[in-house]
Amino acid sequence: MKRLVLLRHGESDWNKQNRFTGWTDVDLTQKGVEEALEAGRLLRESGFCFDRAFTSYLKRAIKTLNNVLDAMDLDWIPVEKDWRLNEKHYGMLQGLNKAETAAKYGEEQVLIWRRSFDIPPQPLAADDERSPLMDRRYAAIRRDLLPLTESLKDTIERILPYWNETILPALAESKDLIVTAHGNSLRAIIKELKGISDEGIISLNLPTAIPYVFEFDDDLRLQKDYFLGDPDKIKALMEAVANQAKGV
Amino acid sequence: MKRLVLLRHGESDWNKQNRFTGWTDVDLTQKGVEEALEAGRLLRESGFCFDRAFTSYLKRAIKTLNNVLDAMDLDWIPVEKDWRLNEKHYGMLQGLNKAETAAKYGEEQVLIWRRSFDIPPQPLAADDERSPLMDRRYAAIRRDLLPLTESLKDTIERILPYWNETILPALAESKDLIVTAHGNSLRAIIKELKGISDEGIISLNLPTAIPYVFEFDDDLRLQKDYFLGDPDKIKALMEAVANQAKGV
Repeated sequence: MKRLVLLRHGESDWNKQNRFTGWTDVDLTQKGVEEALEAGRLLRESGFCFDRAFTSYLKRAIKTLNNVLDAMDLDWIPVEKDWRLNEKHYGMLQGLNKAETAAKYGEEQVLIWRRSFDIPPQPLAADDERSPLMDRRYAAIRRDLLPLTESLKDTIERILPYWNETILPALAESKDLIVTAHGNSLRAIIKELKGISDEGIISLNLPTAIPYVFEFDDDLRLQKDYFLGDPDKIKALMEAVANQAKGV
Repeated sequence: MKRLVLLRHGESDWNKQNRFTGWTDVDLTQKGVEEALEAGRLLRESGFCFDRAFTSYLKRAIKTLNNVLDAMDLDWIPVEKDWRLNEKHYGMLQGLNKAETAAKYGEEQVLIWRRSFDIPPQPLAADDERSPLMDRRYAAIRRDLLPLTESLKDTIERILPYWNETILPALAESKDLIVTAHGNSLRAIIKELKGISDEGIISLNLPTAIPYVFEFDDDLRLQKDYFLGDPDKIKALMEAVANQAKGV
């Protein structure tokens, strides 16, 4: 048996302020750090022992991973960071408060921007200071691959090559892997793994810092998937994510 | 110009207790975390911007690096962890208090074990629970390469291939690199870089969490080296390390 754990980062400064974050590199709150440590303890108690780990270029995911590995006494395992595991790029919405945006544009428009499969928000200008084209960390990436906005469809198309070329081959060679990333970048992987429809993936609200476990046989056929932890707590967390776009 | 920064980890639980640590995987103290963050702020203010980072398999070095990178807003850069950057293996001494060992065996014997170039402490038994042969993290390493004790000479011989095959080629391709490691594993690199004699390297006491900067021209010829920070503070830290083996 092989296992893949997907983990959405713990609470960030902008989760707390309910703002659209996307590629903005905001930090974890102290609560977010605690959530990550708790996820690590739970994984350790449940017998997970990762060979390798994958995360994005964004510190809320990287620091979630660092804290998970530290709680598991696995600080030493190889960690691969890749920009393709970044959150969906939210274009011009990055930095806006979700409830304020709902009050201004209406809940329906915000829900389209947040939850439509293929309609992206308005793009950033290429020379906007928030643009990845202006950011040193993406300087080595092909310019035409870097997004100024993304729909969920775009995010999935960005992530799948990395999934197929890097994570899936690693899983073939490993026993347990972990990927710490973001609500939408993890949706891309879950959609691929479970064959979920374009419409179906929109209503999947991944709770923060709850390990989502996928078990495979040795031929990488998915056997089952489940969240690790208290079911009532997980349900409450998923509902909280779904309610974030409701107006103030 | 290219720059290499060598950084010894911040205070660990066993530094504080003045015990021989070696390959024992002890954690940083809160003070050690603060020291790492301070080193990161200093590096950032001094204009360092690392392309890549290297560290050992031991969490006191890994967490020092994580905190340095976080203070520099460089969480995202690639980090390579390698067992060859581990501290000198202290054999049977691992876990013993330095002052107690000095009271029992005499300061002179302890100084030989700590500071002789080529006399290693008594080795661990291969099946000792402290042995790297029993430790999952070294399971992929060739058995005959894993030490049960080491002299400084042995430590240097272990590290130099990694220096020549991995760090030096990375420096050729990069502008700024950082290596966070340990008192003796960094001595190996410093000895190589500065052509210090076997006797000379023994009296070099590297202060904890003070960035040691090496500047090179584009042909990798060493131009100068210096510690970053307040000279009086650095001198006091180096003397404190030298005095650790004095009896209780």
